[in-house]
Amino acid sequence: MSTTLPPVELTLIGIGTGNPDHLTRQAISAMNAADLILLPHKGEDKAELAALRQSLCDAVLAPGTAVHIAGFDMPVRRSQGDDYLVQVDEWHAAITMRWQAAMADALARGAVDPSRRNALRVALLVWGDPSLYDSTLRIAARMQPAPVRITVVAGITSMQALTAAHAIPVNDIGQPFVVTTGRQLREHGWPAGVDTLMVMLDGQCSFAVLPSDVAHDVQIWWGAYLGMPQQLLDHGPLAEVAERIAATRAAARARHGWIMDIYLLRRSPAHSTSGCA
Amino acid sequence: MSTTLPPVELTLIGIGTGNPDHLTRQAISAMNAADLILLPHKGEDKAELAALRQSLCDAVLAPGTAVHIAGFDMPVRRSQGDDYLVQVDEWHAAITMRWQAAMADALARGAVDPSRRNALRVALLVWGDPSLYDSTLRIAARMQPAPVRITVVAGITSMQALTAAHAIPVNDIGQPFVVTTGRQLREHGWPAGVDTLMVMLDGQCSFAVLPSDVAHDVQIWWGAYLGMPQQLLDHGPLAEVAERIAATRAAARARHGWIMDIYLLRRSPAHSTSGCA
Repeated sequence: MSTTLPPVELTLIGIGTGNPDHLTRQAISAMNAADLILLPHKGEDKAELAALRQSLCDAVLAPGTAVHIAGFDMPVRRSQGDDYLVQVDEWHAAITMRWQAAMADALARGAVDPSRRNALRVALLVWGDPSLYDSTLRIAARMQPAPVRITVVAGITSMQALTAAHAIPVNDIGQPFVVTTGRQLREHGWPAGVDTLMVMLDGQCSFAVLPSDVAHDVQIWWGAYLGMPQQLLDHGPLAEVAERIAATRAAARARHGWIMDIYLLRRSPAHSTSGCA
Repeated sequence: MSTTLPPVELTLIGIGTGNPDHLTRQAISAMNAADLILLPHKGEDKAELAALRQSLCDAVLAPGTAVHIAGFDMPVRRSQGDDYLVQVDEWHAAITMRWQAAMADALARGAVDPSRRNALRVALLVWGDPSLYDSTLRIAARMQPAPVRITVVAGITSMQALTAAHAIPVNDIGQPFVVTTGRQLREHGWPAGVDTLMVMLDGQCSFAVLPSDVAHDVQIWWGAYLGMPQQLLDHGPLAEVAERIAATRAAARARHGWIMDIYLLRRSPAHSTSGCA
């Protein structure tokens, strides 16, 4: 007989970039208030990340806690074909099913007891902040039946960890900036009307493919493993440091089996009038 | 005889939007590690904000702490004339002098004793995150002699508090977004090539002046006093809710004497191809 899930209260908790000291008081409270914390397993090459999530739990859950931690195997997104949004859609549907299976399993094993409040409080730990280039909210919205409540706890993003590590502001005084992805930068070039770009999700060092007339007066501030013991930082004129950063990144990724990095690009304001905005 | 300042180690601590639960473990450690925390006083109408900073200190400083808290009167920025950047420059110079005077005063009164480590550890509490539309880093860079160390502790921004309160992602899947100001939106209109804008520092409800051909399919998610007991939220189609938000904002500002608010604007993706980027 399959286990029927009780009403679910879902909390998406931003946990920063891997440093337990990024956790807010609100995140720590929310973790301790959960019946069940679901942690994704993404295979051997991401074992270090799984261990990191577990160590965050160990660092902040009260001794003798009743919070149950359960893993679920993260499905792999199909990456053949150019139907990116369809791939994402299929993948999100698969993740929703894994979540619900993990909840049902924890209930069936008696690991959690929702009877006290007639709802199961489930927490998910999200790198950075659940609002920023993360799909947990979209996956949660697919649950059937829908959670009776979805709560978001903000977390320190890699954007902030980057600017903090370099001790720089993200924006020039009163000026706008664009937050974008490596793919966008490769496909659409430097956006019109702004001089500052924060680039995320870039596995391909897209900063290296900017045309030289754009790149020649751009500064880059790069960081990887931000807030962690293995943190790497570099910055300088893009034309001078792009190759060095690409080499550092490749070596670090090979050594750790994974990398999370981000960078800020800033060009001199003289260019801003050339945009059409 | 004027007091000569010892070497200064400056820590800029992001404190979120006024909820003590936004504080990270790192922020709490940094506050407790300071010799001196400088709090700005901005006059009677901002008394509630000054009290809020004090209450954050009360909430997290260890009992019997040796951390000394000192206020300094925030100078007022000259706002006549259209030389905005010059006004900001003068104002920053004046703030630097007030900081240094407050440090010298605390030393002269014996309120802090830097002799233990031959440096004075000074902390400044910054709403949100020190990287985002905040000048504390720029003011710190003007200190003469320069601080021997400047450390930044990231904090939860109002951007994140807004998206958490509404439980929404800031970006569409894989899409860029612009972070900008009310002034930019009024003067330059909707930026090319993006469908999502996060608008900060807008005292003039600039969302209400978007031309109707732009505004007609824009959604707005608005929030004020985010994370505080008096938090206000609203959202809906811009054309339907703009007047209601402007009225709510004016009433709240009159009641509290101050307001901090922020909003996200998102239009349907069909427009994105009309940009020149």
